[in-house]
Amino acid sequence: MQSYQEMSKEELLKEKKELEAEYKKFQHRGLQLDMSRGKPSQEQLDLSMGMMDVLSSEVDLTCEDGTDCRNYGVLDGIHEAKVLLGDIMECNPDNIIIYGNSSLNIMYDTISRSMTHGVMGNTPWCKLDKVKFLCPVPGYDRHFAITEYFGIEMINVPMLPTGPDMDMVDALVSSDESIKGIWCVPKYSNPQGITYSDETVRRFARLKPAAKDFRIYWDNAYCVHHLYDIDQDHLIEILAECKRAGNPDMVYKFASTSKISFPGSGVAAIAASANNLEDIRKQLQIQTIGHDKVNQLRHVRYFKDSHGIAEHMRKHADSMRPKFEMILEMFDKELKDLGVGSWYNPKGGYFITYETLEGCAKNVVAKAKKAGVVMTPAGAPFPYGKDPKDSVIRISPSYPSLEDLTMATEIFVVCVKLASIEKLLETK
Amino acid sequence: MQSYQEMSKEELLKEKKELEAEYKKFQHRGLQLDMSRGKPSQEQLDLSMGMMDVLSSEVDLTCEDGTDCRNYGVLDGIHEAKVLLGDIMECNPDNIIIYGNSSLNIMYDTISRSMTHGVMGNTPWCKLDKVKFLCPVPGYDRHFAITEYFGIEMINVPMLPTGPDMDMVDALVSSDESIKGIWCVPKYSNPQGITYSDETVRRFARLKPAAKDFRIYWDNAYCVHHLYDIDQDHLIEILAECKRAGNPDMVYKFASTSKISFPGSGVAAIAASANNLEDIRKQLQIQTIGHDKVNQLRHVRYFKDSHGIAEHMRKHADSMRPKFEMILEMFDKELKDLGVGSWYNPKGGYFITYETLEGCAKNVVAKAKKAGVVMTPAGAPFPYGKDPKDSVIRISPSYPSLEDLTMATEIFVVCVKLASIEKLLETK
Repeated sequence: MQSYQEMSKEELLKEKKELEAEYKKFQHRGLQLDMSRGKPSQEQLDLSMGMMDVLSSEVDLTCEDGTDCRNYGVLDGIHEAKVLLGDIMECNPDNIIIYGNSSLNIMYDTISRSMTHGVMGNTPWCKLDKVKFLCPVPGYDRHFAITEYFGIEMINVPMLPTGPDMDMVDALVSSDESIKGIWCVPKYSNPQGITYSDETVRRFARLKPAAKDFRIYWDNAYCVHHLYDIDQDHLIEILAECKRAGNPDMVYKFASTSKISFPGSGVAAIAASANNLEDIRKQLQIQTIGHDKVNQLRHVRYFKDSHGIAEHMRKHADSMRPKFEMILEMFDKELKDLGVGSWYNPKGGYFITYETLEGCAKNVVAKAKKAGVVMTPAGAPFPYGKDPKDSVIRISPSYPSLEDLTMATEIFVVCVKLASIEKLLETK
Repeated sequence: MQSYQEMSKEELLKEKKELEAEYKKFQHRGLQLDMSRGKPSQEQLDLSMGMMDVLSSEVDLTCEDGTDCRNYGVLDGIHEAKVLLGDIMECNPDNIIIYGNSSLNIMYDTISRSMTHGVMGNTPWCKLDKVKFLCPVPGYDRHFAITEYFGIEMINVPMLPTGPDMDMVDALVSSDESIKGIWCVPKYSNPQGITYSDETVRRFARLKPAAKDFRIYWDNAYCVHHLYDIDQDHLIEILAECKRAGNPDMVYKFASTSKISFPGSGVAAIAASANNLEDIRKQLQIQTIGHDKVNQLRHVRYFKDSHGIAEHMRKHADSMRPKFEMILEMFDKELKDLGVGSWYNPKGGYFITYETLEGCAKNVVAKAKKAGVVMTPAGAPFPYGKDPKDSVIRISPSYPSLEDLTMATEIFVVCVKLASIEKLLETK
């Protein structure tokens, strides 16, 4: 296949005409397809229905230490839930606090607490003139929404194939005391599907922040969300690495079972050093009497341990893998040789990111919409919704059926081609 | 029976000697009884076990509008849960946002949001020199803990048999712009069991606060927690009354199913005006993708409607009533004529408050502890844990068995008598 860059104006115009005819055909079919949301499919939700059977009126709801899970108490989670989440998060259960249903909510609470009460005795951020966060881009829009909501200035840090540009992170964090955190999705990152390299994690653990209350916000949302059984990415465990590097308090780690059991009805947790957890518990004991222990028990009884989780995630992978592979194969076949964009081949997680030629992303998303395919808005994976190159498009393969997704991807490919040609013709 | 006040020193000393012998006997029995915690008993928890059976792998988890409760989405609660909580809270479902498992957590979030973002466009409290709250006393220690945590100055307002002293509330709220709220448990109040009179509620609704962002924090924790079927207290619905009075935005109302189904595994909600809810949703959409819809559905399918709730609460009442009646009868028989304290006869809720002679509460609680009965610490129902008269003791009848509670009450009565005599002897 000839790359578009090498084509003459006439060749491009000819190609454009053919693509427009194809596009029209799709439009006439009046499709309604959705590649916008990182939601599990119904097939995936069905995998966890057994969870609805593990507790019943015939079952004892007492946990191992004798606590009746039906009553008040146990501020930071039942022990067996800490063990299970510890398995998932690769942490000592003693370093874990179990929360409610949402790790996003934990992150929000963490920022909110830092605003009003500061971090481990440091000045509350609301008393400072300026608070900044580093934001590896593209990243997770809901992270950026939290920092924007609290008026925290966000600084873009480019993502490389190894994770965030650590030279830039290092330089900024060590020189600017107003930088209090960095948002990370270190494994199968949202949206690119990149896993931080060993070197990246080691450099994170060895940062020398100017601010004592600088923390790495390590959102390990896709920690067990592999597509393959053997061919999995490996991420160095950050808490242990920070401890080894003499920075035990520098990281908050977040995870949940949202995309393991049921999104919105799972169990979320934070893992951190004993010092950080002590700081957090001071707030927690004011904020609540305790989170939902019955649901914690339900998860423990259903999944049992890391092997149970792994077996369960294998079923999720069986549902997700064909979708990822279909998209990546179609991109390889239809787009690779045209020189109109790039992407990573994630081995897990929930997203594929297509990076268009500069200035094409919004156009592609708009075109897709007019042909009946809803995508995540262009710009969403950036602070303030602003993609400086207008080139990043997040694709969410999970929710639609493989059949619908295949059609949506065909349409997407046509839209990419058309938008790319329109862009190239501007300078011909 | 002769009142202790009328007794001579010799009579008191004789009575004291007899009581000390009785006290010693209790001590020798090495009892371990607990009247400290407002926790439902195991018998009460068993009442809701059927809730563990309503959802199963055979049951459709779709709600009425077609939403799959197992997946992400629905920020402010499924409609049928709003209807159920609307029944409980006597509000239009449109005025309700469903949260997670804890109304305390909603209150915390409400204060925290007001600190960082202000209330409906007003200055964030963290930018103000001084923020104050009115605290009807005795009141709920966890309310006061939240305001203390955020550095909010707390002003005691005495509770009268009709609710807070409204002359004082009125005068303070209308003259001091730094007063931003008042904590209320308006029905079967914690800890006295008082229900605010119609006049009190009407005067609340007609307050003319100096601060635009003054809100009534109406924690209707015991809204359906009656002891009797006919002889129930009635509380005027505050949202409607505020609207009628031209103050629609002046109140946040909180409730949960914590003491209806399972504490810690229930459903909590806030009710407020459309303007307030719009303000709250701006935060909520940043804070979470949504709360646990499966648990919302579980509650709706189990309780169905207000009749289902009422029938269920009748069973709770059957468990609680004998405990309340035993204590109140024993107080009547043993303490009424001695002139050593006072109490209300609650018709619902979770507590009885015994008010000792001035300066006796700590002594009673200490004596009870040494005889094997744990009470709520004296002072707990006051801001900063300081009971200015050292006279209020909160009694929690729910958790122990009737047998244990009877023995604990006998011991408590002896301790009250002893502490009262010791106090009276100081001035003889």
